Amino acid sequence: MRVAVLGVGLIGGSVALAARRLPDVHVTGWDADPRALEQAAAAGVLDEAVGALADAREIDLWVVAVPLVALAATVDRACALARDGAIVTDVGSTKHALVAGAPSDTFIGGHPLAGAETSGVQHARADLFDGATWYLTPGPDTSGVHFDRLRRFVASLGAAPVAIDAAAHDRLMAAVSHLPHVLANVLVQQAASALGGETLPATGPSFRDATRVAGANPPLWAQIYAANAEALGAQVDATIAQLQSVRGQLHDLQAWQQEAAERRRALLEVGLAGGPEEELRVAVPNRPGVVAEIALTLGHAGIDISDMSLAPSNDRRTGIVGLWIASADARRARDLITAKDLIVT
Amino acid sequence: MRVAVLGVGLIGGSVALAARRLPDVHVTGWDADPRALEQAAAAGVLDEAVGALADAREIDLWVVAVPLVALAATVDRACALARDGAIVTDVGSTKHALVAGAPSDTFIGGHPLAGAETSGVQHARADLFDGATWYLTPGPDTSGVHFDRLRRFVASLGAAPVAIDAAAHDRLMAAVSHLPHVLANVLVQQAASALGGETLPATGPSFRDATRVAGANPPLWAQIYAANAEALGAQVDATIAQLQSVRGQLHDLQAWQQEAAERRRALLEVGLAGGPEEELRVAVPNRPGVVAEIALTLGHAGIDISDMSLAPSNDRRTGIVGLWIASADARRARDLITAKDLIVT
Repeated sequence: MRVAVLGVGLIGGSVALAARRLPDVHVTGWDADPRALEQAAAAGVLDEAVGALADAREIDLWVVAVPLVALAATVDRACALARDGAIVTDVGSTKHALVAGAPSDTFIGGHPLAGAETSGVQHARADLFDGATWYLTPGPDTSGVHFDRLRRFVASLGAAPVAIDAAAHDRLMAAVSHLPHVLANVLVQQAASALGGETLPATGPSFRDATRVAGANPPLWAQIYAANAEALGAQVDATIAQLQSVRGQLHDLQAWQQEAAERRRALLEVGLAGGPEEELRVAVPNRPGVVAEIALTLGHAGIDISDMSLAPSNDRRTGIVGLWIASADARRARDLITAKDLIVT
Repeated sequence: MRVAVLGVGLIGGSVALAARRLPDVHVTGWDADPRALEQAAAAGVLDEAVGALADAREIDLWVVAVPLVALAATVDRACALARDGAIVTDVGSTKHALVAGAPSDTFIGGHPLAGAETSGVQHARADLFDGATWYLTPGPDTSGVHFDRLRRFVASLGAAPVAIDAAAHDRLMAAVSHLPHVLANVLVQQAASALGGETLPATGPSFRDATRVAGANPPLWAQIYAANAEALGAQVDATIAQLQSVRGQLHDLQAWQQEAAERRRALLEVGLAGGPEEELRVAVPNRPGVVAEIALTLGHAGIDISDMSLAPSNDRRTGIVGLWIASADARRARDLITAKDLIVT
């Protein structure tokens, strides 16, 4: 199989590396930026680099991994160049508009949930997609044979292919990824206004956690908001409606708070491999090494910490460590930690 | 000095313990719940327990540490019982309505930023307030002598007293604490609606971080929202206005995203003791012990990790560790981590 990777950054480079582990795969790379193409060639992620798209010959599968602003145009060019029976796919983070604008007998949209934390081909890894959800958005004219070939290719890269309607994909991403970014930005703006001359009181991790993604990579996120404007707009509207409702019952929100607690638990549970998890909150003296001590103790017992937060008190002498542990292990983890004279709340 | 602590839970119990370290302090405790009072007496945090408020005699300083729903009534009773020259204060998380309703020659509002993570007198600690900001809200009729006595008392407990206007306090808390809780709840509701039959994709830590406080302690938070309804309502209104503005320019948000990045950095920097911090993001194999290895390495080098997040990939074999490190140490931390063949992004 001959694969063309258009855009050889982190994702494109990782697709190339993962594909080249397979038997009988030849990877041709192209990038609009000649330096990126040189870097990828130098890093050895490609079988062949071409300076012009039209020089990519006899391609069976085109994987478009260019920035969002160039995505639609590059998908169009690949579809125009694709020979009969070839498939064009992409790895962009929004799907509906792209899928609607491309010929659905040739193009099938894709979105691997991996690799957003870094960029550049120097971070490309053959195992980047191992275990990652890889959404595919077949359309009404997609042939079953094409879809199955693409699904098997994605699985052979190590990912878990999941078919989803393009519009549903965008609504989902708007809710669990794009809206959280928007609200994080709103929170820092509100806090900046409210603070005036005051300094930010160290009230614990809630403000930092809630705003961790505020202002993330402005050029990239401006593109994501724009690309998913329709679904994100609907989420913003629903958020405004929900806030207006909350606004009218600020004196009577206990049931709402309770519902949020239950929904959060349910949401996180379904999203976690290996069954539901529990959060243990450990009150610890903030002595050097105490986090390491907890991590080592649980590691030695074969207990996996799937998420961790650390909230020091103002004086840095005490703190709270939050640990997410599989429910099956939570009791044992609690016992091990308590045996170290630490208080689990 | 004779101190009465009304409400002997975590905060009241810790005030008692911290006060009793001082010379010539006698602490009388009262609680509406006889069992809580028994627990506190058994835990040895009090010099004396009284079953009726009127039995607290010759008190110089009344510290009201009851739940928010009972706060105003208990402050009123303490003010009525207080002899000439005595001071009544509280530890509640909202201040404006309480201060407006109490006689400001006797009552001075207070709010220590400590201890929200646990509850119950069994977690009370004499050092709970060490280094914590303790807001005090003197009013127009507060005597300078009274305020100075209270300020010195709070400082003697280990806290850093900060005078603030009661309404400004409530606006500040609404922005940096109460609004983040409201938006976390909104996010889980939006995600639950959007998901339908889909499971939550493991897109990294942003959704979990953004919703970490969703549904926190429903009875307590319902009280906090209600008690701070005025300031929180204004924050919700401003949030709605900001979202409506964002809604109108979803295709052109790069400058807004950039502004959020700068504001977040500025906000976190002013709130951090010991100078500004930097976030290092480390791409790690998710082998057992790797978090411990990083923590130990930095601990041995005397580098303090003030906050940490851990985001595993779907297959739990790789992940990203986020570390907040004082800027002065960030370069050294980066070198130490890189020397372990881990990639800092």
